[in-house]
Amino acid sequence: MANDLIIAPDPSKPGLTRAVTATDQTGATVVLNVVEERPLTIWLNGSEIVTAMTIGDYPEYLALGFLANQGMLAADETVLAVDYDDDLETVVVRTDGQTSYEEKLKKKTRTSGCAVGTVFGDIMEGIAGVTLPDATVCASDLYALAHQINQMPSLYLDAGAIHGTVLCQGANPLVYMEDVGRHNAVDKIAGWMRATGATAADKTLYTTGRLTSEMVIKCAIMGIPVLASRSGFTAWGVELAGQVGLTLIGRMRGQRYQCVAGEHRLVRDVDL
Amino acid sequence: MANDLIIAPDPSKPGLTRAVTATDQTGATVVLNVVEERPLTIWLNGSEIVTAMTIGDYPEYLALGFLANQGMLAADETVLAVDYDDDLETVVVRTDGQTSYEEKLKKKTRTSGCAVGTVFGDIMEGIAGVTLPDATVCASDLYALAHQINQMPSLYLDAGAIHGTVLCQGANPLVYMEDVGRHNAVDKIAGWMRATGATAADKTLYTTGRLTSEMVIKCAIMGIPVLASRSGFTAWGVELAGQVGLTLIGRMRGQRYQCVAGEHRLVRDVDL
Repeated sequence: MANDLIIAPDPSKPGLTRAVTATDQTGATVVLNVVEERPLTIWLNGSEIVTAMTIGDYPEYLALGFLANQGMLAADETVLAVDYDDDLETVVVRTDGQTSYEEKLKKKTRTSGCAVGTVFGDIMEGIAGVTLPDATVCASDLYALAHQINQMPSLYLDAGAIHGTVLCQGANPLVYMEDVGRHNAVDKIAGWMRATGATAADKTLYTTGRLTSEMVIKCAIMGIPVLASRSGFTAWGVELAGQVGLTLIGRMRGQRYQCVAGEHRLVRDVDL
Repeated sequence: MANDLIIAPDPSKPGLTRAVTATDQTGATVVLNVVEERPLTIWLNGSEIVTAMTIGDYPEYLALGFLANQGMLAADETVLAVDYDDDLETVVVRTDGQTSYEEKLKKKTRTSGCAVGTVFGDIMEGIAGVTLPDATVCASDLYALAHQINQMPSLYLDAGAIHGTVLCQGANPLVYMEDVGRHNAVDKIAGWMRATGATAADKTLYTTGRLTSEMVIKCAIMGIPVLASRSGFTAWGVELAGQVGLTLIGRMRGQRYQCVAGEHRLVRDVDL
């Protein structure tokens, strides 16, 4: 099934893992396949925004998606270029004119010196008006997705210590991103969606990681109405999902799962 | 064994979890115990530094440890007060006079507007001169630690979706912190060590999470010579551990483990 994906994990891609020599409990030398983790500094026009720790693939999608999910890049802003420099470990997103983020940043730096608090406030503002589209998600599709994703060759199966996030439609995984940071994997999907103009209303987002406030906020900003995971929830993630009307499904194990918000989209079409 | 700890997890403590109503795969209503996740904004004197997403316990230790691990609070700086305000969700660390961080911040904001990159650069600088103490770690102690920690009542066993980090000495877990953010759990331990003046040279840090660059850097800044986990590694985590001479042991499962750096401290005292 994996070769039907638009973007599938590529565990054999050079540069994503490294052979590390270790000793095991007996003292024997073993060679481990270990995932890479590199700094990538994201710039928006003339402003240095953040240094992300990432496995390093799809840096352009990561930058675009990070900025979009942080509310620093409005949906109607024209992106002129996304320039990645491997040596400098930087990616610069260029827009036509100053973004609203840069104006906010200027005001804020006078009082507090660091934008982290501002950014956080902006994100909460960003989801205040979000209404997610009507849609349905069938339990049979969720089972099919989990089964395919769990079996698909991936860096997770190959080297571990990595998170995966998959953009899905019905029973089909479309874009499967992996990263050492769970947030990066989601941001890379957001960047791909922005770059390709993909619709969100008919999609499901599947993640291997926990369903925290950050994941719920990103999914809501991306406009995707269903978020599912094999992992559990945090209370604020559940609360925010309720506020924005996101269908939030977690703890998927075999045929079991739990739906904590947006129950109205869920169609239980499997006879258990 | 749990009651021998100085700080043990307290899954029954009010405010750390919340009952959430969900439906399961059959449509039946179930009540889940879900961990809390709250914003906590950390201030250093007059500067807003960061908003952390945390489960909410030990906010004073989290703030102290975060600032210390970011290199914003030197070991010789006098902390006058750590004021936590539950309603405002803030904690303010007050020192006598401006910290070096605030000076750096002022210079930096003129050119880039946001301190995230600076902070990152400072951290790498911070470990450049680190030499970790000579020490030994016995395999038998690692087995004993993993066994105790895995069995101990915790939020992880009770509600899931949380990471644990444990400060240990020999075969004894001493301080066991849990948090929705792995980095927060470590920072709370760093804050406890700073507040109590605990020595680092004779300690082992055990974590449930992955051994990334961030974990290795924090452990090195804390001066702890051994870092162990049931999870795997990232390549940069391994590389940095080699640079600072940290003993890095991962993938602990039953009697198996792998040591990727600082092998000289490891005593294989168990006949397998």
